[in-house]
Amino acid sequence: MKVVITGGGGFIGGRLADALVARGRLLGPSGQDEPIDELLLFDREHRPDASREEKKGSLVVERVSGDIGDRETVYTLVDRPDISVFHLASVVSGAGELDFDMAMHVNLDGGRHVLEALRRQPGQPRLVFASSIAVFGGSAMPATVGDTTKQTPQTTYGVTKAILELLINDYSRKGFLDGRSARLPTVIVRPGKPNAAASSFVSGVFREPLNGEDMTLPVAAETAMPLLGYRAIVDGLIALHQVAPERLGDDRAVGLPSLTVTVADMIAALKRVAGARRLGEIAFAPDPFIESICAGWAKDCSDERALALGLPKDGSLDEIVSYYIEDYLDGGSA
Amino acid sequence: MKVVITGGGGFIGGRLADALVARGRLLGPSGQDEPIDELLLFDREHRPDASREEKKGSLVVERVSGDIGDRETVYTLVDRPDISVFHLASVVSGAGELDFDMAMHVNLDGGRHVLEALRRQPGQPRLVFASSIAVFGGSAMPATVGDTTKQTPQTTYGVTKAILELLINDYSRKGFLDGRSARLPTVIVRPGKPNAAASSFVSGVFREPLNGEDMTLPVAAETAMPLLGYRAIVDGLIALHQVAPERLGDDRAVGLPSLTVTVADMIAALKRVAGARRLGEIAFAPDPFIESICAGWAKDCSDERALALGLPKDGSLDEIVSYYIEDYLDGGSA
Repeated sequence: MKVVITGGGGFIGGRLADALVARGRLLGPSGQDEPIDELLLFDREHRPDASREEKKGSLVVERVSGDIGDRETVYTLVDRPDISVFHLASVVSGAGELDFDMAMHVNLDGGRHVLEALRRQPGQPRLVFASSIAVFGGSAMPATVGDTTKQTPQTTYGVTKAILELLINDYSRKGFLDGRSARLPTVIVRPGKPNAAASSFVSGVFREPLNGEDMTLPVAAETAMPLLGYRAIVDGLIALHQVAPERLGDDRAVGLPSLTVTVADMIAALKRVAGARRLGEIAFAPDPFIESICAGWAKDCSDERALALGLPKDGSLDEIVSYYIEDYLDGGSA
Repeated sequence: MKVVITGGGGFIGGRLADALVARGRLLGPSGQDEPIDELLLFDREHRPDASREEKKGSLVVERVSGDIGDRETVYTLVDRPDISVFHLASVVSGAGELDFDMAMHVNLDGGRHVLEALRRQPGQPRLVFASSIAVFGGSAMPATVGDTTKQTPQTTYGVTKAILELLINDYSRKGFLDGRSARLPTVIVRPGKPNAAASSFVSGVFREPLNGEDMTLPVAAETAMPLLGYRAIVDGLIALHQVAPERLGDDRAVGLPSLTVTVADMIAALKRVAGARRLGEIAFAPDPFIESICAGWAKDCSDERALALGLPKDGSLDEIVSYYIEDYLDGGSA
């Protein structure tokens, strides 16, 4: 079977690709795990050093660049019926606030093209969509959000994610595809450079000091948020793909499990796990733009349904930081 | 100022037009009620006997036909900054289940064109969108739904309405326009012929017997639903237009007040109000397609917020039936 990862050039997309190559199989139209022979990573652009096509055992990994907001481009990606799509491509939250039209083009139009591309194939190919807890927000948001909480997002990014959740439910109800939306909390620890997500600092608070660099935080130490490590997130996307459709009922959107921690908790975990490593200095310089976006986020998420579906959860923040050190600092697979 | 009613050729659109002509004024960009000089009724088609343009005092009523899913068509309707739009045009629930692509084209694409057309004008023109209680549904739907209930619609119609509510919140948050969504319950009593809405029988149960015609109901007598009369609905759309934006907060969607009644209640009210009139016979012949759609509807709606905002509510089902007899049977304005 073929697997397409949109946003396959990004951090989560790349880790997901590695996990699928290692796994080699995925639930296919037969209702059984089938060998993956083609893994297509689609993104706006790929790293210049990434090869266009490479063979990994009996599996071919292809990298294709293009605009997901262009329908014909998306249709060419989904060219066989024995296919699954992980739809991760997205304009991130901060960038979406700065460029409304780009957020609508990439997230809403692009998402619709992915749904239509799958609908054109016979059967009900599986789709896993990376939604976000940014679907929650607003003055009526409860202290703990969950799968039955009304979605009143306060960013264009969150609005487009909420719309895709609705559309995926309807395309699944109509039998056009078999879709699932995974609502992601903030994912840490992202390696590399800060990005345009308003939550970028949540990885930075670990990454920069571990690299010996100073880090200035744009929010206060008491700021709380739900987060999860990238290993559990990638495992969660795959686990949600494998869940039998009847277990999902008529709402195919599931909040992935998460840990609720404060910025102060993050700094404490970093110091515990870093041990004797020399850490860069951490300072606070609140940024009203970032603070206003964070203030609107959900502080805590219930995860009973996700855990009942077998979706994984990290044991602790310390564990998440240890994985990052193992994967990216101590000679891991960067 | 100019007022545009999309779906202006339909029943609610026509009644709203009459109410605006009678009123003659509406809250304009000055923050005060301003005289309406242009009232544009847009629809896929108008009644053949309706004039293309007519003068009513100092107000010109124009009727324009076209496809709301065509962006340029919609842009030509919104051609001055002192404008308000009532966006009522929609594929109805039953028709949307039969033609998914048409529902997406008219309801989703058409709705987005209306939002973009208003965004192109300077200032924040007001928009009132006719949403629907069809945004609610699914296995997790509570017994009573309201403005903070999660929207998990089970029809494509309901999905497109929920999406427009989300987009209108975001366009309003961004300052592109000043939008409001009115979530309509089933509206009775619609004169004329049955339409493709799954709820069409709810008007038919009054209209057909009052016309001396027999009526066969596609659902059981115990079927309960929230409904409201057309006079209160039209008054509610205008009242919601007039509400000060700060009273709406960050969720611009409001469920209009409604009465929860059963089909048996409807028949009892009809018999009480009809008095000595000869009524057609009422029979039951359940239709699984209609029943399955109705089974997914909300049974009861809270309306505290709507009433606090000053939106009107009929006193009783009997009152609603009396209005219909007065307006359409006893020589009223058909």
